[in-house]
Amino acid sequence: MPEYRAVRDRLGFLELCKTPDAAAEVTVTAARRLGVDAAIIFADILLVLEPMGVGLAYTDEGPRLGHPVRDGAGVDRLAEVPADALAYVAEAVGLARRALPSTVPLIGFAGAPFTLATYLIEGGPSADFLRTKRFLRDDAGAWDALMDRLVRVTADHLNAQIDAGAQAVQLFDSWVGTLSPTEYRARVLPHVRRLIGALRPDVPVIHFGTGTSGLLEAMRAAGGDVIGLDWRVDLDAAWARLDHAVAVQGNLDPTVLFASPAEIRRQVTDLLGRAAGRPGHVFNLGHGVLPGTPVDHVRRLVDDVHELSAVR
Amino acid sequence: MPEYRAVRDRLGFLELCKTPDAAAEVTVTAARRLGVDAAIIFADILLVLEPMGVGLAYTDEGPRLGHPVRDGAGVDRLAEVPADALAYVAEAVGLARRALPSTVPLIGFAGAPFTLATYLIEGGPSADFLRTKRFLRDDAGAWDALMDRLVRVTADHLNAQIDAGAQAVQLFDSWVGTLSPTEYRARVLPHVRRLIGALRPDVPVIHFGTGTSGLLEAMRAAGGDVIGLDWRVDLDAAWARLDHAVAVQGNLDPTVLFASPAEIRRQVTDLLGRAAGRPGHVFNLGHGVLPGTPVDHVRRLVDDVHELSAVR
Repeated sequence: MPEYRAVRDRLGFLELCKTPDAAAEVTVTAARRLGVDAAIIFADILLVLEPMGVGLAYTDEGPRLGHPVRDGAGVDRLAEVPADALAYVAEAVGLARRALPSTVPLIGFAGAPFTLATYLIEGGPSADFLRTKRFLRDDAGAWDALMDRLVRVTADHLNAQIDAGAQAVQLFDSWVGTLSPTEYRARVLPHVRRLIGALRPDVPVIHFGTGTSGLLEAMRAAGGDVIGLDWRVDLDAAWARLDHAVAVQGNLDPTVLFASPAEIRRQVTDLLGRAAGRPGHVFNLGHGVLPGTPVDHVRRLVDDVHELSAVR
Repeated sequence: MPEYRAVRDRLGFLELCKTPDAAAEVTVTAARRLGVDAAIIFADILLVLEPMGVGLAYTDEGPRLGHPVRDGAGVDRLAEVPADALAYVAEAVGLARRALPSTVPLIGFAGAPFTLATYLIEGGPSADFLRTKRFLRDDAGAWDALMDRLVRVTADHLNAQIDAGAQAVQLFDSWVGTLSPTEYRARVLPHVRRLIGALRPDVPVIHFGTGTSGLLEAMRAAGGDVIGLDWRVDLDAAWARLDHAVAVQGNLDPTVLFASPAEIRRQVTDLLGRAAGRPGHVFNLGHGVLPGTPVDHVRRLVDDVHELSAVR
């Protein structure tokens, strides 16, 4: 969005995250311009890692950590995160909440422990997550200690966002789909369950990952009121596998927004047909909006969803 | 393997593929040294693209195409593949078949049309396959023409390998997991079904992809006697979804080979427990062996599988 580009001309990515009025402005402008039914705070899942002293930097090739964690000693060296280290996110949440119409709920978010651990261990993005997997298999004690740290800091971070006005929170386990279901259940599920259990009650939790078509039942067991689906699974089949016992969010392929308006509408119609008017479907993309996505196509998508899902 | 490195010191990757006695030697040496129950011919899925005049080169960053296909005119410009253009693969199959013990079947292979199309359109590896998806949505006619070409050349290529002595063939749809099931069924399934239908009868076809946990039923509908599973799905759950009506191949995470022998054995035990002695499970990794994998761990894996799956 041009409005966002204009803000970024003034502020670097991390600087923007750390400037509450600018982060709130970006949040509110996006929600207003796109006409969506809920807003999500402008922030980043890696912000919780910065006060740990790992040398976080956002580069043109993505985020990089100057001092990745490579073993148990590395976990012990991680700095404790001071209680107010992420106060700027909560402040942005409060500002955005006050600026948004009361009819538009505001969603807070955080990275899930596994996905945060992949960045801490790999030092950046990875194709095969080999270091992370070796770590969790070779030193289960250090892995659990790392996950404990991440659970604590993430629970505090999400609760602070809730206290500041977030009416729902989303947990992004973006890269958890790299794990086999067996290893997910053994090494990740108990930690996510503990994290979700530590959150303020009565605030809906959206539990999201990508490449999770084989993990859905295990993710449900870990908790969350809403399971986020990427586009690699049929929404109706996935929801049935979850016994329709939780809500689902998703799951349009973000690349569809580059297609013609007619094709977008066709795919929205198919997707809503799979949701079949059942209560508890949050329409969303299956992952984030890609760079270069035409803004007017997003706006049309929102209109299509409103029109095609209106109660007749 | 040091034996492979020694051959590669003499020959570039493409040169090795095109030197039948060397390709056969690499095939036979790997099977003998690892003690596996079947061999797969040394070759590459992109070899069929080279005679199409797209400027295929293997670089340190992976394969690149100098002249990718960007539209219908690009499809029309693709050169017809002469009947003998890939004779060197069939020749390697014949040599390897004669050199292998009669108890070790030889598997031929090819890339599936969708995965080949991603390379043709993207010009190399891709994170989001945006160009490919735009192509198949924006110009269905050109997409079908491209798939028709690829089905024809791939069927000929696999049949030539069968005629030369391959006793089974594997179709690698490595990147098909990037598609939603709906788009897979509409844009890919009919082409794969036609391809499999054009193969010599009575030769088992292994149909493999990665990230396909949400596509398994659709892949089964496209054909194949064996569905290859990556590690992102529980083997027992996947096989049940396939009604146990086809065989399955898989599905150990290749990164497990970097773990300790005890951990490898633990995971093999878990996997064989999920197969539960049911006939029709081909033990394999869930994707290719990663660079740097300890060869002695692969050898131990083979021993573990033999020991733990022996009929008691």
